[in-house]
Amino acid sequence: MNKFISAGAATLIASVTLGGCASTTTPESAATPAPNIIFMIGDGMGFEYISAYRYAMSQLGAHELATTPFDDLLVGAATTYPDDDTWVTDSAASATALATGVKSFNGAIGVDSQKAPQRTLMELAREHGWATGAVATVQVNHATPASFFTHHPSRNMYNDIADSYATQVAHGGWSFDVLLGGGYDYFHRDDKNWLPELEQQGLQVVTRMDDLAQYTQTPVMGLFAPKALPFAIDDKPGRLANMTTHALRLLTEQSTANGKPFALMVEGSMIDWCGHANDIACAVHEMADFAAAVQVVRDYIAEHPNTLLVITADHSTGGLTLGQGGEYAWHSDKVNAISQSIEGMATHLFDMPRQQWRAYVEEKLAFTLTSKQWKQLGEVKLDKELQGRDRLKPIHQVLVNIVSEHTRTGWTTGGHTAVDVPVMATGPGAEAFKGYIDNTDIAKALLKLVR
Amino acid sequence: MNKFISAGAATLIASVTLGGCASTTTPESAATPAPNIIFMIGDGMGFEYISAYRYAMSQLGAHELATTPFDDLLVGAATTYPDDDTWVTDSAASATALATGVKSFNGAIGVDSQKAPQRTLMELAREHGWATGAVATVQVNHATPASFFTHHPSRNMYNDIADSYATQVAHGGWSFDVLLGGGYDYFHRDDKNWLPELEQQGLQVVTRMDDLAQYTQTPVMGLFAPKALPFAIDDKPGRLANMTTHALRLLTEQSTANGKPFALMVEGSMIDWCGHANDIACAVHEMADFAAAVQVVRDYIAEHPNTLLVITADHSTGGLTLGQGGEYAWHSDKVNAISQSIEGMATHLFDMPRQQWRAYVEEKLAFTLTSKQWKQLGEVKLDKELQGRDRLKPIHQVLVNIVSEHTRTGWTTGGHTAVDVPVMATGPGAEAFKGYIDNTDIAKALLKLVR
Repeated sequence: MNKFISAGAATLIASVTLGGCASTTTPESAATPAPNIIFMIGDGMGFEYISAYRYAMSQLGAHELATTPFDDLLVGAATTYPDDDTWVTDSAASATALATGVKSFNGAIGVDSQKAPQRTLMELAREHGWATGAVATVQVNHATPASFFTHHPSRNMYNDIADSYATQVAHGGWSFDVLLGGGYDYFHRDDKNWLPELEQQGLQVVTRMDDLAQYTQTPVMGLFAPKALPFAIDDKPGRLANMTTHALRLLTEQSTANGKPFALMVEGSMIDWCGHANDIACAVHEMADFAAAVQVVRDYIAEHPNTLLVITADHSTGGLTLGQGGEYAWHSDKVNAISQSIEGMATHLFDMPRQQWRAYVEEKLAFTLTSKQWKQLGEVKLDKELQGRDRLKPIHQVLVNIVSEHTRTGWTTGGHTAVDVPVMATGPGAEAFKGYIDNTDIAKALLKLVR
Repeated sequence: MNKFISAGAATLIASVTLGGCASTTTPESAATPAPNIIFMIGDGMGFEYISAYRYAMSQLGAHELATTPFDDLLVGAATTYPDDDTWVTDSAASATALATGVKSFNGAIGVDSQKAPQRTLMELAREHGWATGAVATVQVNHATPASFFTHHPSRNMYNDIADSYATQVAHGGWSFDVLLGGGYDYFHRDDKNWLPELEQQGLQVVTRMDDLAQYTQTPVMGLFAPKALPFAIDDKPGRLANMTTHALRLLTEQSTANGKPFALMVEGSMIDWCGHANDIACAVHEMADFAAAVQVVRDYIAEHPNTLLVITADHSTGGLTLGQGGEYAWHSDKVNAISQSIEGMATHLFDMPRQQWRAYVEEKLAFTLTSKQWKQLGEVKLDKELQGRDRLKPIHQVLVNIVSEHTRTGWTTGGHTAVDVPVMATGPGAEAFKGYIDNTDIAKALLKLVR
């Protein structure tokens, strides 16, 4: 090339004469490997939860908000309605939609409205020789992970769901290489202890999260709690990021050995539980847990760009609003000062002498109760005959009311809501997720990518 | 070209040899005319309002939702926080941000935190010879339209804001070609009647919306109500679409004469008022009014593709949730059956004998009150000494509670909330609005397009 021609002109000449311009006809036979698929689901994570997280991480008056790992990923929103006589989905119907592309009735696990099993993303991936996995903070047989690997007419069939995981090898092989979460008690039951058989069949069961680093081969099942893990606010930080890191490590290893991609589902499962509990500090901590896992995935993608990341929610929970009772404020600083889940506080108070309650609550909430608030709390009637969460409800409700008014956080329900949820995506194929879509469109687009 | 070569091959050959491929160097001197800008603001229109509208238009069990004019336009979401000691904005601070790219304190009209006037999109457009206009369903001197054309330290200075519109010609000329909405009483006051002077100065003032079709030249100011227009649910349908149609007609005319684009702001102003009133049927009707105006704009853009459409909200209002009280449902059919605003019902009930209340309410709500609901309503204490909306509050609140429980609509506040709001865009420059952005980013991107 004549050195007297500018670099720009040289490029232009080259693109015209050497056919170096972007061709409009891309040969379809070019062997572009399918991307890895990482599908992250914030259970219950409506738009309000992301706003809450961002404002909680930010300083009022700093003239600039904290950045979050979500910010440049938002591409659209999804409708979540089930195939049922309501616009409001539960996690089972929505997970079924997100895993199979087929809507179903509330409670359905990987089956359609006629209860017929529907092929899931993980099953399709498996058929094509992919490595597969899932990570959650609830028991691995809970609705969302279960809908990616099993088929049952009801989410409440926890034992059957556990059994269906455990008997997979008898039916042709594990559908997962990595499955991490809680649920030990479902595999080690009075009526059936699966652990010896699972070990014989080569499934490595891990019960302490700190031990995960020692495992270099699949299949691995992590059962890190009897049922769900503790709330993030009551636990060591970073458990979801930690599990995600190891899942990615193990799946990458397996995937490289197979010469095929992997599909991983990561669920921030307990955002929803905090929503049901109408507990804002709990929710913000779960969001931080989920955001840390998103960052792990983003760092992974920077090294492995042939990976599609999609993040969404199955529905929103609790009718969360940032603003309440007429005041134009949401007190993120007061939310950040709270150091225990409301469920945790209620559990402690139930068995504590009443005269110790005030000091305990004021320490955990980090503020001085008004006399009106203390009166409400002090007058709560306890029924020692009740069991489990029912016994805590009266205390729980008063604490929710106190925290809501104090932080100006609104809640309208202990259930789910019908609002559309965020959709985020980056990587090969991300353009399929733009605009207002339906939750089944997400699954259909992912299923198309499996080859 | 040899006829034995396939068309595809011929195209490929042509693109390589004839330099017909898309050049990577676009000459910046090419005279691409700036696009028209149509900026639509749903006041108070958080994501929940769009979901409510879509489900209200849809049939439960139909296996497919109604399409809305919003659906393929969603590109992201915006933060809305003000430059104030709270995360929750009012409409003035947010309109100032959306009009000028500068955040300010709650109540600010086109001024920054030091109360210094900031150049608005409409003023910049005017400087460049563009035609400009705005349409709203509130009085034209209300916070949102006012922030696009005027500068005041407080939104409550309604008379001053009206005066600043009216005296523009004395200060160099009208900043608007078309300004349509309510607010007749602010220009025809006891202390000052502007109408004769405005007429002398060549401003055509229209007071009946049906007369708009007769006007073919600008400037035009429409004052179609003493203050705000009635709620859409209590009015003839289509008023915002109607005003938008005429605004587009007049601006296109003026813009063609100028040889320059136009900038139009269209506000669905009263979505927010229904949110403050915690009135879901009211809100759905305002959303239908706004959606019809969006459709008018979309039809216009199909004929005038060099137009950028951006739709957003200034904040969300009321803490609206679709789902309430634990039931996994939002009863869109029951919402659709309601035929009057709650404010309208309360106004009628206040002056009506109590024994007629039940029949009236049951007709407007289209359902039979339970005895518990009737008891709440029947026992409401009225204070005839109070004035205006205060006198209606006790009735209003009971009706809100009844409708909320009946339809499973949640509300947490009579004010605004901090949640991020939808951002939609299509047309030249639309790519600037993707992902999570700030409300000031929207204004900055629009200001950049004015030349």
